[in-house]
Amino acid sequence: MQYSIPGLLFRGFHKCDTRPFVVEGQQVGLIKSDVLKHLIKYPEVFCTRDCEQTKQGFVELNPAFRDYNERTEQLEKVLRNLRSEGLLPALKGWRDEYFEVKSEHRALLKMERAATPLFGVRKYGVDINGYVRHPTLGLCIWLQQRSNTKETWPGKWDNMVGGGLSVGLGIKETAIKEAAEEASIPFHLVKSLVSAGCVSFYFESRQGLFPNTEYVFDLELPVDFVPQNADGEVQAFELLPAKECMDRVFTSDFKTTSAPVVIDFLIRHGHITADDVVDFTQIVELLHVPLQSFYTYKAHLGQSQRQHQNLQGETKNYRCSSLQKSMENGHKRAT
Amino acid sequence: MQYSIPGLLFRGFHKCDTRPFVVEGQQVGLIKSDVLKHLIKYPEVFCTRDCEQTKQGFVELNPAFRDYNERTEQLEKVLRNLRSEGLLPALKGWRDEYFEVKSEHRALLKMERAATPLFGVRKYGVDINGYVRHPTLGLCIWLQQRSNTKETWPGKWDNMVGGGLSVGLGIKETAIKEAAEEASIPFHLVKSLVSAGCVSFYFESRQGLFPNTEYVFDLELPVDFVPQNADGEVQAFELLPAKECMDRVFTSDFKTTSAPVVIDFLIRHGHITADDVVDFTQIVELLHVPLQSFYTYKAHLGQSQRQHQNLQGETKNYRCSSLQKSMENGHKRAT
Repeated sequence: MQYSIPGLLFRGFHKCDTRPFVVEGQQVGLIKSDVLKHLIKYPEVFCTRDCEQTKQGFVELNPAFRDYNERTEQLEKVLRNLRSEGLLPALKGWRDEYFEVKSEHRALLKMERAATPLFGVRKYGVDINGYVRHPTLGLCIWLQQRSNTKETWPGKWDNMVGGGLSVGLGIKETAIKEAAEEASIPFHLVKSLVSAGCVSFYFESRQGLFPNTEYVFDLELPVDFVPQNADGEVQAFELLPAKECMDRVFTSDFKTTSAPVVIDFLIRHGHITADDVVDFTQIVELLHVPLQSFYTYKAHLGQSQRQHQNLQGETKNYRCSSLQKSMENGHKRAT
Repeated sequence: MQYSIPGLLFRGFHKCDTRPFVVEGQQVGLIKSDVLKHLIKYPEVFCTRDCEQTKQGFVELNPAFRDYNERTEQLEKVLRNLRSEGLLPALKGWRDEYFEVKSEHRALLKMERAATPLFGVRKYGVDINGYVRHPTLGLCIWLQQRSNTKETWPGKWDNMVGGGLSVGLGIKETAIKEAAEEASIPFHLVKSLVSAGCVSFYFESRQGLFPNTEYVFDLELPVDFVPQNADGEVQAFELLPAKECMDRVFTSDFKTTSAPVVIDFLIRHGHITADDVVDFTQIVELLHVPLQSFYTYKAHLGQSQRQHQNLQGETKNYRCSSLQKSMENGHKRAT
């Protein structure tokens, strides 16, 4: 297996011509100029302007909209118009399924799922790595084959269980629900679910921008358990030894956007190691692209406000993480 | 527990006034201007120039030096001079211990360990999370208290086992050696060592730049095993339940640069989860700062060369990872 990752996925991001998409003073997305040219036809809904302090250009949802419902309705009206004009390919996949746009855990509006790549909204999902410690084959991993009738990635191999975070459900709750629907995993087994972190990656296509974060869970299953699909979205399940699973992940039969989850699992469980793979650290970095640093509009604003307040002789306490504090104390001690 | 990580550590990096440090055409470090002003007094050893294609300024070790030994000797002569002048605080910690400077797994030279922050050389280490599944206390973690006579972080609490990668040893080999020296872990136990990825983080202090990557290993230990130090560098070991361990990591009694390893362990084992911690995804991203993207000088050069060759009508195959390829194919299929 030969890896050599030049970080192009990550660097590509910086080159792309995007502006922050701001709702209620907080950045929730990124908009490319080829999408912006359609949005500016609706000045009663979208304003483009520059931040007073940083001079950075951004796109704002009209701050006069009063609440969650008004923001949702106004945005949806525009999206339905754009869909009927047929100029944005992403909207051809309209699903009548909502995605909740949040900022710091506060829901700001909901948006048709097919439109999220146009606004570069961060998407969150859950994935369960179902595995077995087989007495003779060693670590084995359950994969699912997606139904041929699915809108996205039909017929491709995928993680045992996965799904997007939808309106109104928590992260572990979503994982448990998907485990029941996709693989009929009973409660006495699913209660052993272990949260194991998240992977973040980014890609661009003609549909738009895909800044994705998947919360990953590991679930050890008994050797004799066989997943059964309950919602018609899966056509088969297969248990593969780690090595064969790794090989399949790199074929075109595997859903590309699920590959990072399997690679992360194999790294965490010692089946891809620094001693046997070139560019191991780059792979780990590529599985954790710092999407957070591309959604910093509010932070910039906060910084400018802070500087402004300091000039006026005012001081204020800002929230700062324990880790951050601990690092800062560390610097002082080290110097 | 309140976390809110604004990514300052990461953003701070971009603001800092640094130039790539290049040896044999490959970037191996970053040099700040306050260090550069001392190095340019040795023009026979260091040249500062701009990349022809990218116009990016960089510092180069004289490419006329023939080999590993000549590069090492010439650099060391400068460092000993600078040390005697006493202008660089980092060199007061001179240890007579070498760190091997590599590029893509090829050793280019060795450098006094205390000087590495001046050249922003990426440092690599290993850490072992020693843990116990206790029948009543649940997941417990072994911590070590560093000896009061250690040069760095004396008396602080730290991971059970950790150490820098040194000349001539592999990654797992280093972990096994350190496990024996620091905690007297016998071979029948250490053979259960599981590679579990790496954490990468970055900080700056008056000593210089610290772009660190730690290869992490997990080691489950029997309930009745007690680590014993063998090399005089540890004054105590203590077994702590996960919750108490987490609390200690955020005190000033804990070695700051070891905290990311413990936090990563607690995340991977389900003791810090997305449902109970604000900014979970940011924490995971902060544990995997994309250091690779700050050491791209060679990649830039490669890109320019490639463009140049393409202009001349030549084509060449460049190494590309399976993951990268798989992502690119995915884009095509998705569009």
